[in-house]
Amino acid sequence: MQAWKEYQSANKDRFLNELLELLRIPSVSAKSEHKQDMTACAEAVKKRLLEAGADKVDIYPTDGHPIVYGEKIIDPAKPTVLVYGHYDVQPAEPLELWKSGPFDPVIIDGKIFARGSCDDKGQVYMHVKALETMVKTNSLTNNIKFCIEGEEEVGSPNLGKFVKENKNLLKADCVLISDSAMISLDTPSIDIGVRGLSYIEVEVTGPNRDLHSGVYGGAVANPITILAKMIASMHDENNHITIPGFYDDVVVANDEERKLMAQAPFDEKEYKDDLGIKELWGEKGFTTNERTGIRPTLELNGIWGGYTGEGAKTVLPGKAFAKISARLVPNQNSDKITELLINHIKKIAPPYVTVKASLHHGGEPYMTPIDSKAYKAAAKAMETTFGKAPIPVRGGGSIPICALFEKELGIKIVFMGFGLDSDNLHSPNEKFNVENFYKGIETIPYFHKYFSEMS
Amino acid sequence: MQAWKEYQSANKDRFLNELLELLRIPSVSAKSEHKQDMTACAEAVKKRLLEAGADKVDIYPTDGHPIVYGEKIIDPAKPTVLVYGHYDVQPAEPLELWKSGPFDPVIIDGKIFARGSCDDKGQVYMHVKALETMVKTNSLTNNIKFCIEGEEEVGSPNLGKFVKENKNLLKADCVLISDSAMISLDTPSIDIGVRGLSYIEVEVTGPNRDLHSGVYGGAVANPITILAKMIASMHDENNHITIPGFYDDVVVANDEERKLMAQAPFDEKEYKDDLGIKELWGEKGFTTNERTGIRPTLELNGIWGGYTGEGAKTVLPGKAFAKISARLVPNQNSDKITELLINHIKKIAPPYVTVKASLHHGGEPYMTPIDSKAYKAAAKAMETTFGKAPIPVRGGGSIPICALFEKELGIKIVFMGFGLDSDNLHSPNEKFNVENFYKGIETIPYFHKYFSEMS
Repeated sequence: MQAWKEYQSANKDRFLNELLELLRIPSVSAKSEHKQDMTACAEAVKKRLLEAGADKVDIYPTDGHPIVYGEKIIDPAKPTVLVYGHYDVQPAEPLELWKSGPFDPVIIDGKIFARGSCDDKGQVYMHVKALETMVKTNSLTNNIKFCIEGEEEVGSPNLGKFVKENKNLLKADCVLISDSAMISLDTPSIDIGVRGLSYIEVEVTGPNRDLHSGVYGGAVANPITILAKMIASMHDENNHITIPGFYDDVVVANDEERKLMAQAPFDEKEYKDDLGIKELWGEKGFTTNERTGIRPTLELNGIWGGYTGEGAKTVLPGKAFAKISARLVPNQNSDKITELLINHIKKIAPPYVTVKASLHHGGEPYMTPIDSKAYKAAAKAMETTFGKAPIPVRGGGSIPICALFEKELGIKIVFMGFGLDSDNLHSPNEKFNVENFYKGIETIPYFHKYFSEMS
Repeated sequence: MQAWKEYQSANKDRFLNELLELLRIPSVSAKSEHKQDMTACAEAVKKRLLEAGADKVDIYPTDGHPIVYGEKIIDPAKPTVLVYGHYDVQPAEPLELWKSGPFDPVIIDGKIFARGSCDDKGQVYMHVKALETMVKTNSLTNNIKFCIEGEEEVGSPNLGKFVKENKNLLKADCVLISDSAMISLDTPSIDIGVRGLSYIEVEVTGPNRDLHSGVYGGAVANPITILAKMIASMHDENNHITIPGFYDDVVVANDEERKLMAQAPFDEKEYKDDLGIKELWGEKGFTTNERTGIRPTLELNGIWGGYTGEGAKTVLPGKAFAKISARLVPNQNSDKITELLINHIKKIAPPYVTVKASLHHGGEPYMTPIDSKAYKAAAKAMETTFGKAPIPVRGGGSIPICALFEKELGIKIVFMGFGLDSDNLHSPNEKFNVENFYKGIETIPYFHKYFSEMS
């Protein structure tokens, strides 16, 4: 498709500049102070979709942040691909660790540094520019729908309702999502699964106020110490999770799948050097790729309590807090695990303190079959532009809405991610390689072409 | 001393208003942003001492915050009392828990609410107004020196040097300190000891940056989990501290002292109700008063790591931190325990992380003899104004400079505290009962009178 190549080559600088503009909007869904930025970002996505050639684009308000729906229907009888993505981003904190402003995108050494560059604005924008490429070169062979939400990073609390109420609008033959990573440009890969999530917050209350640690210390339980003991008890010496019932529903990967996984390239020294760690950690009996792919985990995402400022304060705090999340694998259920977590935490709380635990959000694990048309089209598209067949791998992250799409729309999902694990998703200095951005724009039209041909 | 009573009665409103003015200065020594407030507060103390009748008052700069030295010498041959106190205060955080501004003093139900109201500006100011009372009624029978520092809440890092270099200036027959509490107005008491302190900060580093908890969780050690395990390991199931050697130098109180301590009034239900807790916590084999008086402790003063803002962020943080302090009893040594703590924490750090631990500040425990002239004068003064003899008790807090005063100046210290344990020292809504403030001003002149008479 020489026309695509020529069009993209002639417009590549503009594509990039448009993305940078989108990255300047601080669309942090978790923080209420960014409500207006969220609306502005939804408007910007709408505008770009229309410019790219969408027939109609609407912004659907929700109880939270709005959803952008757009479509380009060339012929209702042709196959339809539903592109899902999100325009919201994770909070940028800790700000002091960013080398440039999180919403002040800069390109250094061929990498776009900005919050959302890879997750997911940059990857959403590949689809917008792929649409433009096909429209402007009159080569679109299928219908494309876009569902770009603003609450993925907070667990998609309102998307479920929208999908249920708009099944006809969203009717499609497959869902295509670019919100994940590939191994590298040299080793293309496709995620065949995402993990589920149960994200809770814990509040441990000891005394009804902060106390002088000299006057009361030793006689009144310290909520930080108690919380630490509770956290410590949740992994045993083999780094297994100790919560009774936690592993009950886990579908253990069979030897064949584990053998296949072991073939994915993994250089332990390179991995450790990149992270600056001396030793790997993890559940005994599993490799690193297995620990992040096929096993559930329990992570501390945040902890705070007492005096955390400059200098010293001799306080015995009244409260301590933690944010804790579990990643789930097939066949675990998010609601069930959340209940298990909350009950367990309350159960192990000693009588010196009172403990509250509540859900932030959850999502189900999802596996996609590698014999579906959508998977085959994605694999063929990547082989076309990368020159080698992608490896199927299990991703460690979560996209809460996957299970719901399949259930409500009755269609399969395919993940075509162009990010890298080292892109600092959810971390300071999030980046997206310019080359990966362009590679995505180059590959996506082939997906549509092959998917139409196979349908 | 009818003249004292009349003078104080005629000026009581002014005394209180002057204190409120002093409390408006946010003299937080721990935070560099308050450097100018510290200077302003030292100047205010100087001004008030001169107004009260001091012959000369000087502000001595140090490498940190300045020291206010003042004196009223009536006759070098007469006994001299050195009053020690501090004009600096603890940080006011968490601000959201204050019912009124920490530096906006208000009087509600006979209580002065403000940071420093009790610890220690209010108690220092009792001495200033006691001086004024004696000067204005021409009834001073001894010399009084004042050493009011600005770094007590950060461990008095520069006072030691000042004392060593100014032994002549500070020459006295005893040190009188009001920086502690009494049981209640109905049950006056005098602290006969303060605990020492070793305050450290711990930094646990895992990966060299924050990571996506889905992509890396389960394969890379989470610094919060590791820190929690380290903290949890430092108390055993009997709440004994597990650090090898920690108790080695503790002078175990004998049965007689423990029997005496048991006579101090203690109502467990009232204590628990005041704090809003269901169960007491502490080292097995000791009572609550023993746990806070004669036993060393290890407290978590602060912890932080990862995402602590609104909502959820699925991050595996690069670092986690804690502020940890030990309270020490005779015959423990602060330097030795600090080294023990730091070495222990580094030793128990697993190979997945690197751990830094460093000293914030320390101080030695101190015991004062109850057969000294100073103690006897204090007890008699309290008996005079309270109508009953004070009970000697061991305080749980720390005044880092006590041991140094005794060593460098060769004199004993007496603690005459007028605060209450329930005054929320170091906590939001710190208070000082107006009645206790006046009771201190009433009692202090008797101390000077009796001390002169006994000398």
